[in-house]
Amino acid sequence: MKAFQDYYPENLAHCYGCGGQNPHGHHIKTYWDGEETVTRYTPQPYHTAVPGFVYGGVLASLIDCHSTGSAAAALYRAQGREMDSQPPVRCVTGSLHVDYLKPTPLGCELEIRGHIREIKGRKVIVESTLSVDGVVTVRGQVVALQMPEDFGV
Amino acid sequence: MKAFQDYYPENLAHCYGCGGQNPHGHHIKTYWDGEETVTRYTPQPYHTAVPGFVYGGVLASLIDCHSTGSAAAALYRAQGREMDSQPPVRCVTGSLHVDYLKPTPLGCELEIRGHIREIKGRKVIVESTLSVDGVVTVRGQVVALQMPEDFGV
Repeated sequence: MKAFQDYYPENLAHCYGCGGQNPHGHHIKTYWDGEETVTRYTPQPYHTAVPGFVYGGVLASLIDCHSTGSAAAALYRAQGREMDSQPPVRCVTGSLHVDYLKPTPLGCELEIRGHIREIKGRKVIVESTLSVDGVVTVRGQVVALQMPEDFGV
Repeated sequence: MKAFQDYYPENLAHCYGCGGQNPHGHHIKTYWDGEETVTRYTPQPYHTAVPGFVYGGVLASLIDCHSTGSAAAALYRAQGREMDSQPPVRCVTGSLHVDYLKPTPLGCELEIRGHIREIKGRKVIVESTLSVDGVVTVRGQVVALQMPEDFGV
């Protein structure tokens, strides 16, 4: 099954968080699971805050890219379009909010689940949780904006 | 001049964003400038969102570590203590909010400036701006919490 990120056009696939063309990046992959979106990712051993726990900046990055990918997928779905149809839809982050509820242990697979809260024109609000073995350690909310066609050109 | 991060005790200096002991990390350095705190950092060429612009997750990470470092420095200062006095003060992030006002160009030095909005017990609220050549591209707010002495032990 292809992930949302597998549909990114080549010129928009260099994101450090989710672009397949960035050799240094996280390469996250996001999928629909019914009405929710899901990303699973295992941080590297050096993604530490204090030893044994995941660095908050990486957790924020995961919430961010999971949410912008989810927002684009939601726009395709709302328009009744396949993700390989033209023109491509990509979103950027307008704002990111992350609540760190408890320390996230390092060395485990993390599951990020997104819920599309609102679609209004080019704006999509995505609420997400990040959990380890079913325990939610982080909550996030992203206001994503559909990227102008000439962004970065 | 020593940065805030140079005072971290060895067991708390492994943070991917600001720990001197993490060979893979960003190694940010933060200083007082009067009542404000300042961090300067130049992202790596691969820290891209779309080509030519800085990845939002790295910008969030910079706001995060700049702010928790600033919060710890503010607690030392509020207590009239030097940063090499015992016991050490470190802060973790309770919540992180980032507004992306405009794309941040890649290849430039970024300046993050923090303002201590509030200190209440173990909680410190830090508001920050991130700018390139004097143009603010990102605003952030962090609620930082003084780390319990037994965190990560």
